[in-house]
Amino acid sequence: MNNIRGILDQNAFRFENLDQADPSLREMVRKRLETVGPTSMLFYEEPLHIVKGEGVWLDDSQGRRYLDMYNNVPSVGHCHPHIVQAVARQMGVLNTHTRYLHEDIHHYADRLLSTLPAPLERLVLACTGSESNDMALRLARQWTGKHGIIVSEAAYHGNTSAVTDVSPSSYKTGSPPDHVHVIALSNILTAVDPAQWFLEQVQAGVKQLAARGHGCAALLVDSIFSSDGIYADPAGFMAPAVTWLQANGSLLISDEVQPGFGRTGAGMWGFSRHQVTPDIVTMGKPMGNGFPMAGLVTRDELLAALNADIGYFNTFGGSTVAVAAGMAVLDVLEDEQLITNAQHQGEYLKAQLNDLRSHYEEISDVRGAGLFIGLDLCNPHQNGQPDTSRTTQVINTLKHNGVLIGAAGKSGSTLKLRPPLCIQRQEIDLFIETLEHAIKSTSG
Amino acid sequence: MNNIRGILDQNAFRFENLDQADPSLREMVRKRLETVGPTSMLFYEEPLHIVKGEGVWLDDSQGRRYLDMYNNVPSVGHCHPHIVQAVARQMGVLNTHTRYLHEDIHHYADRLLSTLPAPLERLVLACTGSESNDMALRLARQWTGKHGIIVSEAAYHGNTSAVTDVSPSSYKTGSPPDHVHVIALSNILTAVDPAQWFLEQVQAGVKQLAARGHGCAALLVDSIFSSDGIYADPAGFMAPAVTWLQANGSLLISDEVQPGFGRTGAGMWGFSRHQVTPDIVTMGKPMGNGFPMAGLVTRDELLAALNADIGYFNTFGGSTVAVAAGMAVLDVLEDEQLITNAQHQGEYLKAQLNDLRSHYEEISDVRGAGLFIGLDLCNPHQNGQPDTSRTTQVINTLKHNGVLIGAAGKSGSTLKLRPPLCIQRQEIDLFIETLEHAIKSTSG
Repeated sequence: MNNIRGILDQNAFRFENLDQADPSLREMVRKRLETVGPTSMLFYEEPLHIVKGEGVWLDDSQGRRYLDMYNNVPSVGHCHPHIVQAVARQMGVLNTHTRYLHEDIHHYADRLLSTLPAPLERLVLACTGSESNDMALRLARQWTGKHGIIVSEAAYHGNTSAVTDVSPSSYKTGSPPDHVHVIALSNILTAVDPAQWFLEQVQAGVKQLAARGHGCAALLVDSIFSSDGIYADPAGFMAPAVTWLQANGSLLISDEVQPGFGRTGAGMWGFSRHQVTPDIVTMGKPMGNGFPMAGLVTRDELLAALNADIGYFNTFGGSTVAVAAGMAVLDVLEDEQLITNAQHQGEYLKAQLNDLRSHYEEISDVRGAGLFIGLDLCNPHQNGQPDTSRTTQVINTLKHNGVLIGAAGKSGSTLKLRPPLCIQRQEIDLFIETLEHAIKSTSG
Repeated sequence: MNNIRGILDQNAFRFENLDQADPSLREMVRKRLETVGPTSMLFYEEPLHIVKGEGVWLDDSQGRRYLDMYNNVPSVGHCHPHIVQAVARQMGVLNTHTRYLHEDIHHYADRLLSTLPAPLERLVLACTGSESNDMALRLARQWTGKHGIIVSEAAYHGNTSAVTDVSPSSYKTGSPPDHVHVIALSNILTAVDPAQWFLEQVQAGVKQLAARGHGCAALLVDSIFSSDGIYADPAGFMAPAVTWLQANGSLLISDEVQPGFGRTGAGMWGFSRHQVTPDIVTMGKPMGNGFPMAGLVTRDELLAALNADIGYFNTFGGSTVAVAAGMAVLDVLEDEQLITNAQHQGEYLKAQLNDLRSHYEEISDVRGAGLFIGLDLCNPHQNGQPDTSRTTQVINTLKHNGVLIGAAGKSGSTLKLRPPLCIQRQEIDLFIETLEHAIKSTSG
């Protein structure tokens, strides 16, 4: 089925082009192949050697500055001093695991849980989104007694064995396993009634998984469908499907690793735009602004059921230092009103992109919420087909002119925009100007 | 088969005893249950509220100091200033992922790989030992085309779905799945020829897994069998089994998460005591002295095979900050000659424990290498049966008198000693004195 190799590799440096690379980079790339080896992908036709980060900016070794429209981990800004200080301070006092009492983890959990709907009352801290999604699968399977999972066609949920199974975008060869049902999410764009369409897809998935003998443990979705190409609207389209699903004994796992922590501008969590209450929420990337931390929020009863069968402990998860990092991120989100900024700057960015769209027929769609926006590039001379090669050209031209972005979507023709949440209007103007130039100077 | 609940829960605070706890702790424990909930185990009959760490010492909120003979993560010492400074400095400059070039990761990989035998030439960085072992399973299965795994009876290799399957000590109910063969490792103590015995166990495992249709992808072992109760000797006992296994198309995954980074005092890695060359080495806990980082080392060909089928990327793994933490740990290991210290202090500790053993028939065995030592407690009045309840008493008495340790082994009657590698003789003397008192003041 899906051969989505393009998504992961499209913006990758081709190691076979090593001899044509800039001599100053060539030796580093060679060294890289000799040390971290073949799984270690580099971005861009010619890789970037980044040495410094600050706010929305990254500097390379030649002193060139890049506007970072790509990285969603340093969500409150690269090297934010409040986070750096919080981690440094706590590392100097105590860095230990959760098997001793420490009040900070309770304060952090209280603060984080207060942003979630009431039944989601317990926080488990881990280190990566992969670990959180892996545990979510275990919880859902333990609770429902079923094994099947429904995901979207270009989903990425992480890198463990179990989570790779439910991440079609990771497969370069082969198909998702028998217990995974895949929804062709991009078809929602042509649905007359998207909510009804999504309900029907989920119902069909549950039926198929039942017929294959697995049953459906959960619908696992990134609530903004990031790697599918960013499908945010219409807000609420997930609601009928989720209501039906939960009434029929399956769970909703909302993967908030990408949309969470305010990126959509509509509050802390992407699922809230859909008026659903997940059974499990997973989170990661921006949670520690780059300090490795992640988490899972669910009802007490699900954790108790898992705990009766299998223990769970995470050595670094919820350490005193991780909690300090997480708390500092919440401080900055509040103090600098970054969710409001994501909403306002996101609206401005989207309006500017829609304005560009009205001038360039190569832009076939602009989608998104807050500071998570997808822009589709097509070939107007070929019936508006997705234009993967143009997308790659645009990404590399933008890089050449000092702006970093990436691609998403099953055909890799969606520009994926997700800058740090502290971005300001003048930086968006710079981006729009550079993007317009890149579209003008490339061809389909 | 194994019901090894004791190992994980034996030293746990019983939440049902909350009302009898010290009032100052009661409110914190209640808060904990209401926030991080049921999977969140606390150590000791009465939990510890730790507020500060330094070297081999932890301080509680009452100002009491504890000699830390338990924690193997802060392996070069709690809050070591060189690590704290390295992390703080790099966090303030650049904290980003591996898809941009950065020379530090190459220097770190070079330095780490130079401690490993030649065929192990590539390093993949992850965040946790669980992630490393999960990826090791994928590599082994991809490479061999087989699915079965051989582990020891009380093994713990991590917390993902796939790794929990191969971690019998995590199961509170039920048995390991069909594709997992378990070796009753503690029987090695009564084997006439331990190497021959281990070879026979591995051969039987391969035969069983073949008969069940899975084949054997790998023998996955912690090279000092930590959670089984620490089985270090005779050095070399793994060699014939591993030679046979590798000649017959299966791999050795050496889980160095616990013995690695010098703890055995016999070099960086536990497997070297056995004169074997693993196909995959996994590492974690002490790698960043508490900064969340982990890794996997293998041959290029295994990574290339996985990479052709499925991509692998780890958002936080190998970040510039993780690499800074890892490099600082290697600095301290060298500058403070901690592997030599582990060897010398470990020999001294073992000699003192053997001296105690000659005076107390409750001590039935002392095993280990370097600063990783297990001490079995038995009931001499009941034919030397393992004495789990006495072990719990000793652990809690030690804690009461200012020393932190834990238990291991399938019956939970092995005291598990693994202090920071910077421990000195006077601290060992204090430990021995406190242990003798604890043995005297408890009864079987």
